[in-house]
Amino acid sequence: MQRILSTELAGQEPGREVTVAGWIHRRRLLKSVAFLVVRDAGGFSQVVVTEPETREQLERLTEESVVEVTAVVSANEQAPYGVELTSPSIHELSRVAVPLPFEMHRPALNAGLPAQLDHAALALRHPSRAAGLRVAAAATKGFREALEAQRFVEIHTPKIVESATESGANVFKIDYFGRPGYLAQSPQFFKQLMVGVFERVYEVGPVFRAEPSDTARHLAQYTSLDAEMGFIADHRDVMAALTLTIKGMLGEIGTAVEAPDEIPAVHFSEALRIAGAPEDEPDLAPAHERALGEWALREHGSEFVFVTGYPMRKRPFYTHPDPADPTWSNGFDLLFRGLEIVTGGQRLHRYEDYVEALTRRGEPLEPYAGYLDGFRFGMPPHGGWAIGLERFVARLTGIANVRETTAFPRDLNRIAP
Amino acid sequence: MQRILSTELAGQEPGREVTVAGWIHRRRLLKSVAFLVVRDAGGFSQVVVTEPETREQLERLTEESVVEVTAVVSANEQAPYGVELTSPSIHELSRVAVPLPFEMHRPALNAGLPAQLDHAALALRHPSRAAGLRVAAAATKGFREALEAQRFVEIHTPKIVESATESGANVFKIDYFGRPGYLAQSPQFFKQLMVGVFERVYEVGPVFRAEPSDTARHLAQYTSLDAEMGFIADHRDVMAALTLTIKGMLGEIGTAVEAPDEIPAVHFSEALRIAGAPEDEPDLAPAHERALGEWALREHGSEFVFVTGYPMRKRPFYTHPDPADPTWSNGFDLLFRGLEIVTGGQRLHRYEDYVEALTRRGEPLEPYAGYLDGFRFGMPPHGGWAIGLERFVARLTGIANVRETTAFPRDLNRIAP
Repeated sequence: MQRILSTELAGQEPGREVTVAGWIHRRRLLKSVAFLVVRDAGGFSQVVVTEPETREQLERLTEESVVEVTAVVSANEQAPYGVELTSPSIHELSRVAVPLPFEMHRPALNAGLPAQLDHAALALRHPSRAAGLRVAAAATKGFREALEAQRFVEIHTPKIVESATESGANVFKIDYFGRPGYLAQSPQFFKQLMVGVFERVYEVGPVFRAEPSDTARHLAQYTSLDAEMGFIADHRDVMAALTLTIKGMLGEIGTAVEAPDEIPAVHFSEALRIAGAPEDEPDLAPAHERALGEWALREHGSEFVFVTGYPMRKRPFYTHPDPADPTWSNGFDLLFRGLEIVTGGQRLHRYEDYVEALTRRGEPLEPYAGYLDGFRFGMPPHGGWAIGLERFVARLTGIANVRETTAFPRDLNRIAP
Repeated sequence: MQRILSTELAGQEPGREVTVAGWIHRRRLLKSVAFLVVRDAGGFSQVVVTEPETREQLERLTEESVVEVTAVVSANEQAPYGVELTSPSIHELSRVAVPLPFEMHRPALNAGLPAQLDHAALALRHPSRAAGLRVAAAATKGFREALEAQRFVEIHTPKIVESATESGANVFKIDYFGRPGYLAQSPQFFKQLMVGVFERVYEVGPVFRAEPSDTARHLAQYTSLDAEMGFIADHRDVMAALTLTIKGMLGEIGTAVEAPDEIPAVHFSEALRIAGAPEDEPDLAPAHERALGEWALREHGSEFVFVTGYPMRKRPFYTHPDPADPTWSNGFDLLFRGLEIVTGGQRLHRYEDYVEALTRRGEPLEPYAGYLDGFRFGMPPHGGWAIGLERFVARLTGIANVRETTAFPRDLNRIAP
């Protein structure tokens, strides 16, 4: 008999025989009756067992065993989807013979994060953990669809690079056929070069940071949602495309959070004033970001706020300066509820500007040869952004630790499972 | 003035002023007139220059310079979209001051592959190269959409793993915070574990193979299109889901290639007979695969053919044996035009079967601990597949070398740009 999902139990006619399959989420062996809650990809089915033989079988099948249950539909308003399943015959697909390291059937997962991560394959089955991963999947889908509607083309770029150029020390070194290589910290250089091919490109892929920081915000591998677009006037065109994209992501997630059609934007110098920071501060501290988040909500009714014009000295070498005053950049951050979730900006696009920018920072040109080559042969004004998927999901869902928003996190101390 | 794409020139009213922007694809300086072909993400615009001042400007702007052209629409049936642009004013966005390493304006790119790869940022702009990457993007989109329609959920899994378990020597070793780590050769173990969470999962991501093979088919990094599904009867359920997915990919690409609703399938032992191979051959050689491709086309009118039941001894340890005869496996390959493009199959799902399979192969269990943990806690019968994106695109488009189907290939000798 063709299996149905628990969600398809809704509206099934009483008396009909159906087959469901899934994990034994909860088994309750009472004196005269046993209840079985079967968990599948849709939700839960409730099975009532009164037959002695089935009861006996059930006594051997502990929680998380996988079963296929063929039974009769009976109306029960208390049960999920108003249906419970009676007179079941249970076919065992996979039996659990050891005690679970933690209980899976309670509404919350009562296990510390280390235990959950040690047994990730089990912990992630808990609906509370699976929900976070579903939000990540929806965010990614919304990201792609919003960008494709704006004619961005998907690209796949190398994760192994020749030089540790982008931010110095925090890179993983690999043995690449006997010579040194490094794991890419971002697709930044490649996505810029691909603007020369498709004008607008995006990539969803892993990036690697060997940051020795063991905090709730750091992962050694995370998923970066990158986009880059050419033929812009300046960073404001990038911010407009990003706003559409963020709205697409929120829509796909189906959250109550909303972004306005035009997200309020404040210049860095104004942001310092709003946050009550000294005017010579080179960057925004977490407290400043929080103050800006409160300001945007109060003044503009927006949980999102752009900060533009960050000082050039705090932005990477490829950042385009503000043509009106090169102390400031055409770089921006997008804050959500007072926390930075996106960094972006306009980039340099002329070869000679790159040579000048690198030379001014005392950097040799040679490690950048493959990157600079693209600019030597003509590139339009362009810009883009990167969203860290895990931090975005954590902030949106209120999950405190980014390790809970990804299936098998990698950090300073963890490389398995 | 708002820029339009070259494709939007079609149907523009003569006399109207428009702005296009892009790369100078071709510049022809004749005696009394100059022609400019401007390339953008949509295609080409033809610009006619008769004004002396603009002509003078154009003499400084060599091919691949980036320009914005505001000009008047004139009907010309010979020009792309039936439109040429006259009386232009040209705004220079980025000038090319060095000779190009190869010509970009001819229909074919007359440069050897090494030169193209050395200057990838330039070569990829050529329409013939960009087209291959567009096919890859469409294939990926079709893959995802076909799977989401079948309720697969997208996952992101670690690319850094603790042990080089999956296929021995051909792994890249990394320095992971002072201890050894390896780049993942596939998401195989992780996607199987995630069947326990979502029943059906997929991943599009990079995989890494340190194969010291310098051939037209090998890349050190490629994009793997992975899927895995639970609650199957056997590998035939996987083949059915794969068939729908392949059809979705072909549809999104918009190729003339078609896959039948039911792709013909032959058992390995029958495949040997069809290919005229000795019946004790343990695997299919390229010549056998070609013969099978011809047979499927001749007998079934299909460019695709499944080979099922590969001998267990040639398949990985997690492969599920054929319950009727454990010499054979429930593993399959999908051949397209006589070449394997997908490998898949049913996997083991019971913990004790894994212990037995690894022990029989003389493998210690400890390096597999995180993987086995998921099976200890109940997993349904499941299976899946992996498609190598670059090989699929190469085979579909007739591109001879996989290096031409990816933007910045990595191989035995190449780690840049």
